[in-house]
Amino acid sequence: MTCQAPATMDADHVSRMDHDSFLARFAGVFESSPWVAREAWRTRPWATVAELHAAMVGVVAAAPRERRLELLRAHPDLAGVDGRNPDLTRASASEQAAAGLDDLDVVRGRRLAALTREYRRRFGFPFIVCAREHTPASILAHADARLGSAPEEEERAALTEVAKIARLRLADLVTDPEAAR
Amino acid sequence: MTCQAPATMDADHVSRMDHDSFLARFAGVFESSPWVAREAWRTRPWATVAELHAAMVGVVAAAPRERRLELLRAHPDLAGVDGRNPDLTRASASEQAAAGLDDLDVVRGRRLAALTREYRRRFGFPFIVCAREHTPASILAHADARLGSAPEEEERAALTEVAKIARLRLADLVTDPEAAR
Repeated sequence: MTCQAPATMDADHVSRMDHDSFLARFAGVFESSPWVAREAWRTRPWATVAELHAAMVGVVAAAPRERRLELLRAHPDLAGVDGRNPDLTRASASEQAAAGLDDLDVVRGRRLAALTREYRRRFGFPFIVCAREHTPASILAHADARLGSAPEEEERAALTEVAKIARLRLADLVTDPEAAR
Repeated sequence: MTCQAPATMDADHVSRMDHDSFLARFAGVFESSPWVAREAWRTRPWATVAELHAAMVGVVAAAPRERRLELLRAHPDLAGVDGRNPDLTRASASEQAAAGLDDLDVVRGRRLAALTREYRRRFGFPFIVCAREHTPASILAHADARLGSAPEEEERAALTEVAKIARLRLADLVTDPEAAR
């Protein structure tokens, strides 16, 4: 018989986790940026998972701008037709697959690759979108529209997407410990 | 007929406030520290007021330690028998009155003054307690107990009290615009 965390946790259980267990489970809610979970841990207890999410978003908002840009840059490029990226985190890979990005036709794949290249050249960070809320067609339209934004506006938009991605990852992690792997 | 913000706001209304209106209303949720509201504003929208509170607490948690200490030092001393402090914010004065601190007997007033002096000497910031959750007797017992804490432990305890104070102030401010004055 093994001893492990329950499969589904409520906010009360999460609030009582010690620092190391909390980090082991939630370090990846913000892509490759465990500092967000580490600082948010100090704000416990949370009455709901939404409050924990809000605290994490507050941590990001209060970080120096350079650290926020690092968080944006820690995100992978959306995988186009050639996007077999061995560095993709499991979370990102499954999010991109949910949006159908692992199975794009050649034309769309090339278009997405061109848009994300252009986006990164223009803004200095990758095109980030909460893929699970999209289809390939809507991602292409979205990337096209966001290329026209002013840089500071786009920085805000990217952080809003990051917060949405985090909300969905957090929801997975409190219901399924496997999602932390 | 005058045009003004509604007396009671829900989270949806608060989420739609522009930067200046939001600051005008919520700058004082954290004592003399409008930077908390300013940075939390970026994390909108919030589904509940509790989420806005969590975001503000996240902002504080992510601030550099020196800035968190400044936030603690921005709090007034609890008013003992001689505590007619003209610098007291309206929010602090009414919180202290709610705990009965505006009407202490001489013995308790002197005891509180001695404890808060000793506390400030030991930790370098004032003794902070969510006064509305207390009576004079329980504040005295609490101050006595907290004087025995390790400094880093006490820093955490003080920030927890600050978060509780903020939760109550926020609840007032969404239901009563006069509370912002």
